[in-house]
Amino acid sequence: MAVKKMCRDADPVLEKNIRELKGCETAHERMAYQTNKCGYGLDGVCCKLCSNGPCRLSYTRPRGVCGADADTIAARNFTRQIAAGSACYLHVVENAAKQLKKIGQTHGKIKNETALDNLCDKFEIQDGDSWAKCEAVADAVLTDLNRPVDDHMTLVSKIAYPMRVDNWRRLGIMPGGAKDEVFQALIKTSTNLNSDPMDLLVHAMRMGIGTGVYGLVLTNLINDVIMGGSEIAFEPVGMRVIDPTAINIMVTGHQHAFFETLDETLGKPEIQKMAQMVGASGIRLVGCTCVGQDFQMRSKSMSDAFCGHAGNNYTSEAVLMTGCVDMVVSEFNCTLPGIEPICEKLNIPQLCIDPVAKKATAEMDVYTYEKRNEITGRIISTAIKAYQDRHGAGRDNPMKAHGYAESITGVTEVTLKDFLGGNYQALIKLIAEGTIKGIACVVGCSNLRAGGHDVLTVDLVKELIKRNILVLSAGCTCGGLENTGLMTREAAELAGPGLKAVCKQLGIPPVLNFGPCLAIGRMELVAGDIAREMNVDIPQLPLVFSAPQWLEEQALADGVFALDLGLPLHLGLAPFVTGSSVIVETLTEGLKSMTGGQLIIEPDAAIAAAELDAIIDDKRKGLNL
Amino acid sequence: MAVKKMCRDADPVLEKNIRELKGCETAHERMAYQTNKCGYGLDGVCCKLCSNGPCRLSYTRPRGVCGADADTIAARNFTRQIAAGSACYLHVVENAAKQLKKIGQTHGKIKNETALDNLCDKFEIQDGDSWAKCEAVADAVLTDLNRPVDDHMTLVSKIAYPMRVDNWRRLGIMPGGAKDEVFQALIKTSTNLNSDPMDLLVHAMRMGIGTGVYGLVLTNLINDVIMGGSEIAFEPVGMRVIDPTAINIMVTGHQHAFFETLDETLGKPEIQKMAQMVGASGIRLVGCTCVGQDFQMRSKSMSDAFCGHAGNNYTSEAVLMTGCVDMVVSEFNCTLPGIEPICEKLNIPQLCIDPVAKKATAEMDVYTYEKRNEITGRIISTAIKAYQDRHGAGRDNPMKAHGYAESITGVTEVTLKDFLGGNYQALIKLIAEGTIKGIACVVGCSNLRAGGHDVLTVDLVKELIKRNILVLSAGCTCGGLENTGLMTREAAELAGPGLKAVCKQLGIPPVLNFGPCLAIGRMELVAGDIAREMNVDIPQLPLVFSAPQWLEEQALADGVFALDLGLPLHLGLAPFVTGSSVIVETLTEGLKSMTGGQLIIEPDAAIAAAELDAIIDDKRKGLNL
Repeated sequence: MAVKKMCRDADPVLEKNIRELKGCETAHERMAYQTNKCGYGLDGVCCKLCSNGPCRLSYTRPRGVCGADADTIAARNFTRQIAAGSACYLHVVENAAKQLKKIGQTHGKIKNETALDNLCDKFEIQDGDSWAKCEAVADAVLTDLNRPVDDHMTLVSKIAYPMRVDNWRRLGIMPGGAKDEVFQALIKTSTNLNSDPMDLLVHAMRMGIGTGVYGLVLTNLINDVIMGGSEIAFEPVGMRVIDPTAINIMVTGHQHAFFETLDETLGKPEIQKMAQMVGASGIRLVGCTCVGQDFQMRSKSMSDAFCGHAGNNYTSEAVLMTGCVDMVVSEFNCTLPGIEPICEKLNIPQLCIDPVAKKATAEMDVYTYEKRNEITGRIISTAIKAYQDRHGAGRDNPMKAHGYAESITGVTEVTLKDFLGGNYQALIKLIAEGTIKGIACVVGCSNLRAGGHDVLTVDLVKELIKRNILVLSAGCTCGGLENTGLMTREAAELAGPGLKAVCKQLGIPPVLNFGPCLAIGRMELVAGDIAREMNVDIPQLPLVFSAPQWLEEQALADGVFALDLGLPLHLGLAPFVTGSSVIVETLTEGLKSMTGGQLIIEPDAAIAAAELDAIIDDKRKGLNL
Repeated sequence: MAVKKMCRDADPVLEKNIRELKGCETAHERMAYQTNKCGYGLDGVCCKLCSNGPCRLSYTRPRGVCGADADTIAARNFTRQIAAGSACYLHVVENAAKQLKKIGQTHGKIKNETALDNLCDKFEIQDGDSWAKCEAVADAVLTDLNRPVDDHMTLVSKIAYPMRVDNWRRLGIMPGGAKDEVFQALIKTSTNLNSDPMDLLVHAMRMGIGTGVYGLVLTNLINDVIMGGSEIAFEPVGMRVIDPTAINIMVTGHQHAFFETLDETLGKPEIQKMAQMVGASGIRLVGCTCVGQDFQMRSKSMSDAFCGHAGNNYTSEAVLMTGCVDMVVSEFNCTLPGIEPICEKLNIPQLCIDPVAKKATAEMDVYTYEKRNEITGRIISTAIKAYQDRHGAGRDNPMKAHGYAESITGVTEVTLKDFLGGNYQALIKLIAEGTIKGIACVVGCSNLRAGGHDVLTVDLVKELIKRNILVLSAGCTCGGLENTGLMTREAAELAGPGLKAVCKQLGIPPVLNFGPCLAIGRMELVAGDIAREMNVDIPQLPLVFSAPQWLEEQALADGVFALDLGLPLHLGLAPFVTGSSVIVETLTEGLKSMTGGQLIIEPDAAIAAAELDAIIDDKRKGLNL
């Protein structure tokens, strides 16, 4: 029998499973036939903005027909990507704020008053009851998002670390209304308009702040109010969480609060009884992609219907192929088109609940706060019917051995500080004395091009913890790190002696799980808190970021925020800008004297770890540690 | 001596000039080295949205790594292009409305009260003086543009032809807030979100309406208030308009009202005297691209400082190479990056006055209504200084024989109707009896890939007029048609017998000049007026549109509006969608039963003319003509 051509997977159980799957194609296999990449595209020097194109620049063809050079073309392409990525995150925060507003207006359920109080403190909102406060918080966010581009947003200086705000003011990159910044970027990146790579990069830096402060930080803080808080815990992860005897609804996306009513309803005994009446053991939410990470992180606030996180983006096809999923409900990105033929073949109904994310073969029923019960009803009845149509007796979950029984979850800027005793002094002391050398936030997506699914992420993290660098993770990276055991207590054995001792003493793994990619915003709050306690600016901390396997444009927009924060940012694959010396030079070197940030491109895990380690050394020296 | 490799030009004088130019490269030459095109890019089946890319689809590789197929990938790419094009036009109308509002607020100059009254009639605004009305009109436009996506814009039904509005309502494509529609499209076209090509196309259709009604129609109507009206006239065109003894300021872009104060100031005798004091014969505005077309069209409302329209987008490099331009002021698109090295070499200062259009080697001074006098002063003093730095005695304009002495201009929905006696009955009669067979609006850009600069446009128009089809033109097409003589009275000789007789009788050419590409909106008003007089819907008219040499994403957004209007739309080059059978089938066939529109792709002038002629035949039959 021919060996299936496919890319590698860091998770050997998953790799074996995909290798043996029959009848449906997976992304792993498509990666194998899409390995031959276009050099112009990789370098960002292909331009398709006008009908004279595609123009492709090279040594003998240094300009497009219009006269645009490599710097202009790559900067336009890159800035348009940042604009799209930023737009996605802004959509998520806008919807979260709208939902918070509705809760305020309708006197709906507030699951976390402490989180609301914290937001009100930051926003300087004092008046009114909790519902009025929900409205006021939501209005402040919505007003900022919808300001014109020439009107600075007001919450940036209330949320971001003050020394950073000073830096951004000095550089003149305080953003105007975040949505209008995106809109202007789309114009700027059109043909025969802006040709100035530096102007385009500066615009990207402004969008990075909008993305970070609103899309990342504020979305979480708003979701905490709506969805409830977290608790550090050890939970099962991987496809083992799927109970084949239950009616299983797989969820994918990033707009966690859209599922609040669904979760609450599924938690009701009468609904579980309905499921049992058709022969199922119950009806469950199966977490996949970041919405699953978020639910897992908030397990203490979720109903028992949530059965756990099965896996990240490129695990979702395998999750469906277990044959144990009865329905897919999706609302945002990381919902691969590749799941559509699988759902078709296995007769799994798909429902999209946000019009921006209509899948070709799915039904759509647009979620609104007013319709939340109606949509919940439709999802439950569709899932029950699908279960009845498809499920015979005696079925099994072929992946019941996948994943781990106890993997850490629930780490946030709140729970971590609580765990450490109410402040970061203990952690700072461990860093100061060198027991923990520094912190690396290994975050973002998984892709298949950087060695295979989660390969670089897992290899890099192993190298980092070996060097006594504590790793925090958020996003699809967590899926890979969970399912390869790096978030179990036993992973302490893989850490260097200092970090290992700390982990053993505290009963934690050397890699802490912050949940969804949105929670990168939480890490940035942690960074601010530590900097505040040390009375330094964020770029001075022995802290590095890496998105080793960044995938989507959203990840690039996140990444720009990290550079705005003055952080070293490692990527395993270069963004499509390497044809422009101006952009490469600016991002890797020039920024150091501006925000303090720097981009590091390195596909090799060991070399990348050494580079990040060297930067941490320098930062430690700068702090006289 | 080696023959210069370059693309063809429909204008033999310009072609000879560019062939002989030395020392600076032009787009014509770059086209020659950029002829080898990427088939994946042309087909729209290259995807660079994520780091697993670029993925390129083919028979053996039918999906990207994520699973997206050719329909999804091409639809995302295309819809993102429409979004960008729409954003550009919306920027223009938003700035025009803001300027009108400022005029109202500050009791500034209103140059055309009749135009204001017409707008107020349409908008149902009755109260207040003219300034209050300016504010009310502006507010109505700005409010619509900035509505959320789920809130329909209110002016669509006040501006668009009622039967079209009914059609759009039936199809469910009435647009929400135009800017938010664009914003949502940017999200939708991101990876792992929307995979439904039909949903994406419907979104594009909605953006087409926003683009057309606001960006095209309303921008003109607002500019008419600010800038003054038009008059049908015969004016000199081509590089002959450049007086080498004058201080010459070349303008490029699309935001005509930004130049109102500059034009007015240059018209003052004391300013002309200043120019004469440094040895110049005066100080002039040289029109280039659409801003020049617009000034030419409004000659009667402009000062004498405006010397005429020199040429379209790909003429601008040659204009600079005459050595007679002292300064370039640009504010929007169609400002080729290729002019930058020429300006550098010839020490021509460049000033950008809109931050979305910063050129790499230009200074920037952002135009605001408050700063209009300050910027005007800076432009004048910069131009005078540049003239002094560069100009010796005895210089000549090497292109003084270029262009034509008397070319028609000033045709609008107002002047054409006036010219015909206050209604379209005379024209309808000529069409009904077959003397004029139908009308073709040949509009949009010029590109260099469809046979060379203006080649297909000129060839197509010659074929159409030969068939007794009256041609209306707007955009860079006018530049090519002017400079090849097709807008002179003498061009009547090239028309078929019926059209020729009409032209001779009325003393007009067979090709009428509506001015800038924005004036495509005026044609759509003409179409509505004719349909209204005939009591039919727009798709029933013997009227076709062609953008034979469309160039920019904006042209695609315009084109979608033509399809929304139910018009046959010819393009000489396919948009980058030909890898998707769903899109091609929908645009070329499926739309016929929806809006009534249809896309025709044909690079050959004679075949395209025959196809358009056949469609006109069908439409005539439908009307029993």
